[in-house]
Amino acid sequence: MLATTLSDIRTIDFTEMPDPVIQYPTDAIVKVVASCICGSDLWPYRGDNGPVEAPRTIGHECLGEVVEIGSEVRDFAVGDTVVVPFDHCDNTCPHCLAGSQQACVNYEMTVSGQGELARVAQADGSLMRLEAPGADRLPDLLTLSDVFPTGYHAAFSAGVTPGSTAVVVGDGAVGLLGVLSARILGAERIIAMSRHASRQRLATAFGATDIVAARGEEGEAEVLELTRGVGADAVLECVGTGPAMVTAFNVVRPGATVGFVGVPHGVELPVATMFKKNARLAGGLAPVRRYLPDLLPLVLEGSVSPGLVFDSTLPMSEAAEGYRQMDEREAIKVFLQP
Amino acid sequence: MLATTLSDIRTIDFTEMPDPVIQYPTDAIVKVVASCICGSDLWPYRGDNGPVEAPRTIGHECLGEVVEIGSEVRDFAVGDTVVVPFDHCDNTCPHCLAGSQQACVNYEMTVSGQGELARVAQADGSLMRLEAPGADRLPDLLTLSDVFPTGYHAAFSAGVTPGSTAVVVGDGAVGLLGVLSARILGAERIIAMSRHASRQRLATAFGATDIVAARGEEGEAEVLELTRGVGADAVLECVGTGPAMVTAFNVVRPGATVGFVGVPHGVELPVATMFKKNARLAGGLAPVRRYLPDLLPLVLEGSVSPGLVFDSTLPMSEAAEGYRQMDEREAIKVFLQP
Repeated sequence: MLATTLSDIRTIDFTEMPDPVIQYPTDAIVKVVASCICGSDLWPYRGDNGPVEAPRTIGHECLGEVVEIGSEVRDFAVGDTVVVPFDHCDNTCPHCLAGSQQACVNYEMTVSGQGELARVAQADGSLMRLEAPGADRLPDLLTLSDVFPTGYHAAFSAGVTPGSTAVVVGDGAVGLLGVLSARILGAERIIAMSRHASRQRLATAFGATDIVAARGEEGEAEVLELTRGVGADAVLECVGTGPAMVTAFNVVRPGATVGFVGVPHGVELPVATMFKKNARLAGGLAPVRRYLPDLLPLVLEGSVSPGLVFDSTLPMSEAAEGYRQMDEREAIKVFLQP
Repeated sequence: MLATTLSDIRTIDFTEMPDPVIQYPTDAIVKVVASCICGSDLWPYRGDNGPVEAPRTIGHECLGEVVEIGSEVRDFAVGDTVVVPFDHCDNTCPHCLAGSQQACVNYEMTVSGQGELARVAQADGSLMRLEAPGADRLPDLLTLSDVFPTGYHAAFSAGVTPGSTAVVVGDGAVGLLGVLSARILGAERIIAMSRHASRQRLATAFGATDIVAARGEEGEAEVLELTRGVGADAVLECVGTGPAMVTAFNVVRPGATVGFVGVPHGVELPVATMFKKNARLAGGLAPVRRYLPDLLPLVLEGSVSPGLVFDSTLPMSEAAEGYRQMDEREAIKVFLQP
């Protein structure tokens, strides 16, 4: 197959790679119908996860059509159109049953989501079937693979409740869908911390009631003023860096929760602040499959448009340009067409 | 008054100090009827909080009799016997109303609890009145000032529910009362991590169903085996050190919560483990006043005996010996008689 690969730091190619194959009887192979670049793909791209040892496929978000199934796959057939959660799970182990599908005992991840074909482990537990969508619905539906449930996980973990005040730290695609998710969960006031005009506009479109452009102490002071000195009922930390985490704990009200979903890079949690405030930390890697039964209907009925986070569309063969756009923050999120 | 003082590292005296005075009309002064030494008193005693600049009173746990009130104290009168929460609160600010009394906007702490007299800020919000108890009831009632609600806070924050499996990391007085609190909250299985025979016995008396004596990776492996590889539904971290926190997150099941109450000293939270497991962190400084309406009746009716954590009793004038006993782990917790 042809697939997007990372062969060295900042070196993305679209090149011939071995087809993925069925490794376990519970696997399926999907033909990728829609794909995209994740903010977390930028970590290996930039070399922040260490050196790149050998060319490898990249990409973990995709929507696809089943083209092959293992002998034990019962619930899906060749030809089905499916949402592929980036984290595969059997949905039957004790962790899955407790809603922690990201810790499934049979956990695997999509590793060639930006290629023509992708292997899905635990197909029965992982996939969600849908009617083959028109091209115009692909962006909204594709967000269900990762970025929308991840933003939702931040809001859900932070304990957003109807009538509450939520703060979203981070205006990447995850943060923006965190805003949308806070709205879905009934937040009355949603303060988006964003300093880019185009992202501020999208945050407002998704339901943000207030925008705080300042960062660090100045931004924290503004949030505290907006919350009458009390702090926010729930904070979504959607960046994954130390400064973002510090801001999150400085603006959350005592006893309330920071929901975090950004892959932590160099984060030292502010434990003294957490101790004094009794501020909780929840979240982490999103259990995508857990939320799909709730989020897929919202997308299908058209009551939400999470696909608005895609502000650039490229053929998969030009993925390298997509990485450049996201790395330089020219694009919020890049949609890739096979 | 005569009061226990810390004048240098490991230098405890019982000496003449200025009487505490009413500083705000919401203050009260109590004559200390019963006092004790807290594990957290050992931090300044050992010099772990930095140098001791000048002799100062020490002690924040006491039961007392009101001997003076400020002009705005409405609910208490001279002569009342009271439980004095170590953390004083007005119980009316937004944080108190949300159950985070430890973050009260008028927060203060008892600072001469091991002296003859102690000042209580926000008397109406902080204190709980009780009938003057007999001497035999003092140990149980004194635990309400800090150590019992702190252990309870660990269990409550960890989300212990009826039928659950809880692990308690730490066999100091707080950990032991964490065991008792997990039992109160209905845990079916309580695994106490303790390597001292006398503390193991007390843990069992308080409701522990299993004892794990090993520490570190070996102890974690035993807990995982006891929980069939799944991990615990709730973990109480009652130490406040890095290794204890790492153990707590290694034995908690994915998606579940570590409740922490040990004052963090040199703790770096294992954020990568927390992210992957979606293990939550909650707790911190205990909002003592929040729990007293629930815990005081249990003590009064005699259904729990938290005072069993006191295995040494000394006159307050011999507090120095008490510090020595706790520092060298000869005693679990030392009761001080004025």
